[in-house]
Amino acid sequence: MTGVFITFEGIEGAGKSTQIQNAYEILSVKNPDNVILTREPGGTEAGEAIRNIMLYATRHKIDGITELFLLFAGRCQHIRDVIRPALSADKIVLCDRFTDATFAYQGGGRGVDIRLISQLQDMVQGELRPDLTFLLDTPVEVGLERIKGRKEPDRFEAETVKFFKRVRNAYLDLAGRFPERVRVINAAQGIEEVKGEIHAVLLSRGLC
Amino acid sequence: MTGVFITFEGIEGAGKSTQIQNAYEILSVKNPDNVILTREPGGTEAGEAIRNIMLYATRHKIDGITELFLLFAGRCQHIRDVIRPALSADKIVLCDRFTDATFAYQGGGRGVDIRLISQLQDMVQGELRPDLTFLLDTPVEVGLERIKGRKEPDRFEAETVKFFKRVRNAYLDLAGRFPERVRVINAAQGIEEVKGEIHAVLLSRGLC
Repeated sequence: MTGVFITFEGIEGAGKSTQIQNAYEILSVKNPDNVILTREPGGTEAGEAIRNIMLYATRHKIDGITELFLLFAGRCQHIRDVIRPALSADKIVLCDRFTDATFAYQGGGRGVDIRLISQLQDMVQGELRPDLTFLLDTPVEVGLERIKGRKEPDRFEAETVKFFKRVRNAYLDLAGRFPERVRVINAAQGIEEVKGEIHAVLLSRGLC
Repeated sequence: MTGVFITFEGIEGAGKSTQIQNAYEILSVKNPDNVILTREPGGTEAGEAIRNIMLYATRHKIDGITELFLLFAGRCQHIRDVIRPALSADKIVLCDRFTDATFAYQGGGRGVDIRLISQLQDMVQGELRPDLTFLLDTPVEVGLERIKGRKEPDRFEAETVKFFKRVRNAYLDLAGRFPERVRVINAAQGIEEVKGEIHAVLLSRGLC
């Protein structure tokens, strides 16, 4: 596979959706057919149905391990139908959340054993890992303030500040473990500053 | 846990639904509150939503590994919310399909590596295995003839004779590997004969 696999990570309100869209536009200038934008959970028809179960569909508490298996079920389909074919066709794949989010939310946030997450990662992904990850990092209070007043919160958005602090710490821990791959961006800055930093990284990698 | 966990397995048209209902009635005579009837995939709200994705919801082919993870996601929730609590309360749990079906359908039928299925089984179930399994065994042609003309077939019912032959063989292989647990019942017989054989096994185990 010769494409480039770039993921965007961060807690709620970090600005992922805005910035991945910005990156998409920056990278599309040269060749719009060369870039695809996708997301997890989701990204395929089955994946979106799974996302729906996870975020909204059940009144009862979903077990942490159930959630983990649902995520990897969707990821498996997403990799097979979307990510690998695009990378094989030499495209740039921009993905809104990937397995780092599983380590951060299910591992850090919910306390699921990260060895189990690692095992499932190997089973489902084989050697596939992102080539580059933007971690949009912001204090939890800043992120939550930004999403206040949005639509009805989903199961994750309704979590506590403590939960999101564990998620943020798990993300920062990943950045420490994989400094070559994960670029931490201060997302408490304004949108234009964040966009500029991302642009600079993409330029430095020769992607635009 | 002091309850009894009994599963019913077999290919389409083997008569599982009829016979599990019969067994439920036989076991309920003494104490109807002591027996529960459940099924996989399904058995919980999240599980039924997952079942729906697997059987009907997607037009696109679901990957074998995706299917496997979906099954174990639902199983995890089912064990936590339904099976373990019932067994802890000393009940008899009758379950229409369980992990043997995963070995038979995904392993035998779809060719998913059974070592992977075993690993997921250990992750999700720990030591939990059925105490007794009724394998309703019938030639594929007999089973398929029985379900002909039922409602619109789901993704599994629409499979080929070859597929179901692989499934049946995988089931028989499991019966050979776990002769203490798996009782093979000739389900090509009439309903009453099958019911009688199941009744005799339940009696011999002191369950009715």
